[in-house]
Amino acid sequence: MAERYALGIDFGTESGRALLVNVETGEEVATYVHPYPHGVLDTALPDGTPLEHDWALQDPNDWIEILTVTVPQVMRAAGAAPEQVIGIGVDFTSCTVLPVKQDGTPLCNLPQFKSRPHAWPKLWKHHAAQPEADRITQAIRQRGETILERYGGKMSSEWIFPKIWQVLDEDEEIYDAADRFIEGGDWIVEQLCGQEARSSCMAGYKGMWDKEEGFPSPELLKSLHPKLENIVGTKLSKTILPLGSKAGELTAKMAELMGLKAGTAVAVAIIDAHSAVPGSGVTEPGKMLMVMGTSTCHMLLSEKKMKVDGMCGCVRDGILPGFYGYEAGQPATGDIFAWFVENCVPYPVYEEANNRGVSVHYVLEERAARLAPGQSGLIALDWWNGNRSVLVDAELSGLMLGMTLTTRPEEMYLALIEATAFGTRKIIEAFAGSGIPITELFACGGLAERNKLLLRVYANVTGLPIRIAQSPQTCALGAAILGTVAAGKAAGGYDTPQEAAARMARLKDEAYAPDATAHQAYTDLYQEYTQLHDYFGRGTNDVMKRLRKMRG
Amino acid sequence: MAERYALGIDFGTESGRALLVNVETGEEVATYVHPYPHGVLDTALPDGTPLEHDWALQDPNDWIEILTVTVPQVMRAAGAAPEQVIGIGVDFTSCTVLPVKQDGTPLCNLPQFKSRPHAWPKLWKHHAAQPEADRITQAIRQRGETILERYGGKMSSEWIFPKIWQVLDEDEEIYDAADRFIEGGDWIVEQLCGQEARSSCMAGYKGMWDKEEGFPSPELLKSLHPKLENIVGTKLSKTILPLGSKAGELTAKMAELMGLKAGTAVAVAIIDAHSAVPGSGVTEPGKMLMVMGTSTCHMLLSEKKMKVDGMCGCVRDGILPGFYGYEAGQPATGDIFAWFVENCVPYPVYEEANNRGVSVHYVLEERAARLAPGQSGLIALDWWNGNRSVLVDAELSGLMLGMTLTTRPEEMYLALIEATAFGTRKIIEAFAGSGIPITELFACGGLAERNKLLLRVYANVTGLPIRIAQSPQTCALGAAILGTVAAGKAAGGYDTPQEAAARMARLKDEAYAPDATAHQAYTDLYQEYTQLHDYFGRGTNDVMKRLRKMRG
Repeated sequence: MAERYALGIDFGTESGRALLVNVETGEEVATYVHPYPHGVLDTALPDGTPLEHDWALQDPNDWIEILTVTVPQVMRAAGAAPEQVIGIGVDFTSCTVLPVKQDGTPLCNLPQFKSRPHAWPKLWKHHAAQPEADRITQAIRQRGETILERYGGKMSSEWIFPKIWQVLDEDEEIYDAADRFIEGGDWIVEQLCGQEARSSCMAGYKGMWDKEEGFPSPELLKSLHPKLENIVGTKLSKTILPLGSKAGELTAKMAELMGLKAGTAVAVAIIDAHSAVPGSGVTEPGKMLMVMGTSTCHMLLSEKKMKVDGMCGCVRDGILPGFYGYEAGQPATGDIFAWFVENCVPYPVYEEANNRGVSVHYVLEERAARLAPGQSGLIALDWWNGNRSVLVDAELSGLMLGMTLTTRPEEMYLALIEATAFGTRKIIEAFAGSGIPITELFACGGLAERNKLLLRVYANVTGLPIRIAQSPQTCALGAAILGTVAAGKAAGGYDTPQEAAARMARLKDEAYAPDATAHQAYTDLYQEYTQLHDYFGRGTNDVMKRLRKMRG
Repeated sequence: MAERYALGIDFGTESGRALLVNVETGEEVATYVHPYPHGVLDTALPDGTPLEHDWALQDPNDWIEILTVTVPQVMRAAGAAPEQVIGIGVDFTSCTVLPVKQDGTPLCNLPQFKSRPHAWPKLWKHHAAQPEADRITQAIRQRGETILERYGGKMSSEWIFPKIWQVLDEDEEIYDAADRFIEGGDWIVEQLCGQEARSSCMAGYKGMWDKEEGFPSPELLKSLHPKLENIVGTKLSKTILPLGSKAGELTAKMAELMGLKAGTAVAVAIIDAHSAVPGSGVTEPGKMLMVMGTSTCHMLLSEKKMKVDGMCGCVRDGILPGFYGYEAGQPATGDIFAWFVENCVPYPVYEEANNRGVSVHYVLEERAARLAPGQSGLIALDWWNGNRSVLVDAELSGLMLGMTLTTRPEEMYLALIEATAFGTRKIIEAFAGSGIPITELFACGGLAERNKLLLRVYANVTGLPIRIAQSPQTCALGAAILGTVAAGKAAGGYDTPQEAAARMARLKDEAYAPDATAHQAYTDLYQEYTQLHDYFGRGTNDVMKRLRKMRG
């Protein structure tokens, strides 16, 4: 019998990727990455129309190009026949939202709207809806509603309601012309199978939907703007499908464009970071997955629905069906280290890296690895891009303390790694304090792949063992896993993501066990981190906000 | 009539300098610098005997070499005849102290002691007597004595009593063998004119002597160690001469070695930094001189004797006769910028500097000069080498706050400059708060010569105009000025340092006037600095000390 394959299609910020996986063994048979031709539109539209500060858009036609370019490439590379592919899964950045006509046509594809910024998809990192986000937070609080408790207490400018309201605020004609607003991931699934199947993951984490409590009330929405009162059920679908569901079957048209078989099962979309959970084989409560790249997402399954300080979201069926999926995050980790290497590393380190043919990161890591906890005399707060968990405050900024005339670059580099580890420990303690203990850490993503020192520090700071996902593309693998579940056992797939992940996802042999002495030293340092964290983060001294305001 | 000259001989940390100055016009006719052959002995004695951490010694024979090398050089360069030199002044680092036999022979020159570290001169920056300094502070407080009020409340490990006590503590045989302990500057003057003439400047700032209150009491000294009870009057001379006095006349032997005339007037020695006050022409109350190099000394004359928080010393006749001379200081300014350039400046800045043939400092300064106050979004505490004034705490360390992913090196560089300026403003406000207002700033030293941005920031932060000394060697010039006063009017010199400085010292035409808008912005930032300064510096959060302890 021929091998059975699943396709995971991963839509990132700068590029998209197809991954063809053996359903039986999890072997990653072929993968292909293709950059979006228009990348991120953050200064102008393709026709030159300028964009304001904090805007970030994408072109939906680029997403289609991912489907038509990357899928044929992996099929060809694997020598796979269309009928060998039993299911397709999609993971996508979120909340990336676009206004469409009833038939799914993006407004930006209509000639009359192509120069109107609000007709284009707003990418997850479009931050220009901050005023709307703040006003929604305020409105919810004034009404005494508890809806934000599931989201750490604050509406994020990245989420769907602020982004939609910004359209209405700034270009009402576009708002009126939009028959629907839809997540990019849901839109791609709709393109694949010809019908909308709104993802519980995206609706839950970014759309204020809750399986038990439903949607934001018309009263709340009306208090924002009369036109928003009935948006749920008109411009936003009320039909939410849990992850692991089948969204539909591949249309003949798309099958032809992608070189696949019409009727192939298509899974409900999942957010990219969340997809790494099944992709790393993490399918039980008590295990936290850290998706580590420029930023870190912390994912956790639980049977309990609790209020946890500063978590970004708690969604039933949000990561795997049957569990509450919790998300927390640090908005800069790899980004801080990259900033440091770009801005703070002196010539001799570059020279050494060049002479040895290694990266600057490598030299710093090698030197920093020789330092014991506390030996640098430094401590930092990891808020270069604000704080997304526990404090949920984007206006916080970085701090480093303890420098002397003998402080060396590798000491500062280590202090930054330690600071991000302390930030993760804060998140773990917030969950534990809410009755959701975490006993084991898992890591995936580029940073976890590359930086052994980082993982050692994280293990020593948290006192928890860390295992690393085997796959370097856990998001795409997670999507493929959901594709096998959409297909179902009868079609050669699986009945649950747990079952599929157990067969298809695996961990590396290497593991990082905490060292007791180092953990004790880091626990002392963590007390210092906590005192600074609370002093600068909880309003005793709002100097970071005042400096931000002065900076203008 | 032939020109009349004065010689200023400046003994620094790494080298010595002779300066020949026209007495009438202040013209600097010739100068010559010679490095100490043995430099600073901080890891081993010349014979290889290892030194412990925090030690810093010098070789007194190096000092003699300065006299015999640099003076003939300037005489030759100027084509000056010995009889044209009417007076010699000496400035010296302090407290640099050595044990000598009755005839002035340094113990380290005796074969039996040459491998004994305590037989060698302890340089000003020898910090290994910290335990003794702490115990003296404690003893003084326990006895309820007010002697430390003149010194900001704490005994410094750099001063004479801790250094002498360390000898007694650690090598009692050397202590016993020493007939006298003497400041390096006083020792050089003794070598020049064959008799000790203890300087009011060194005795006052570093030796706990006060013109009205005298010396530390035998009771206090006995409480430290029985052998110290009568040290004043036995191993330490009780005869103190005010600055501007004649110490004696050049001996025939030294005249021959230096190519000068026997009988030439020799002035009482002055501390190097203090010598910059007459050397910059600052001879009136209300004007603060900043001697800016690796660190900054703040010097101020006043008719009043007041208690000022954290000043390093208040000495009658300590800078100019007839005034109380106040000293305050920041233990790292240029050192912080040098640290930053060495450790924190990325490759592209080096590359630009190289391509343009300018220094890295220059590139950073040029970029930082384009930033308005507050535009960086950063604030720093300038404690890379502790805090010497106001807080008087060597265990404090540096802090920087406000970093984001867009923070650039020149912004951090500017924040460091601003932080040192805020530190100076703290010192100015401490004086004003004690009834000693400061209306004008003067600057001299390498940093003031080189860094225009720095002076602009200081003027804007303090709201005070800044003038710059004309001479690039104000310390040596100040010493020469005292040489003319030692000679006196009858011999073609002057009767007072004021009179001499008025003729011989001058200011550059360029001046830095504060900009009102920038001053207002900096006053807002200064409030932030003050809040952080007090939080980390006054015991609310002693994290810096705890980190230092962890570092070990």
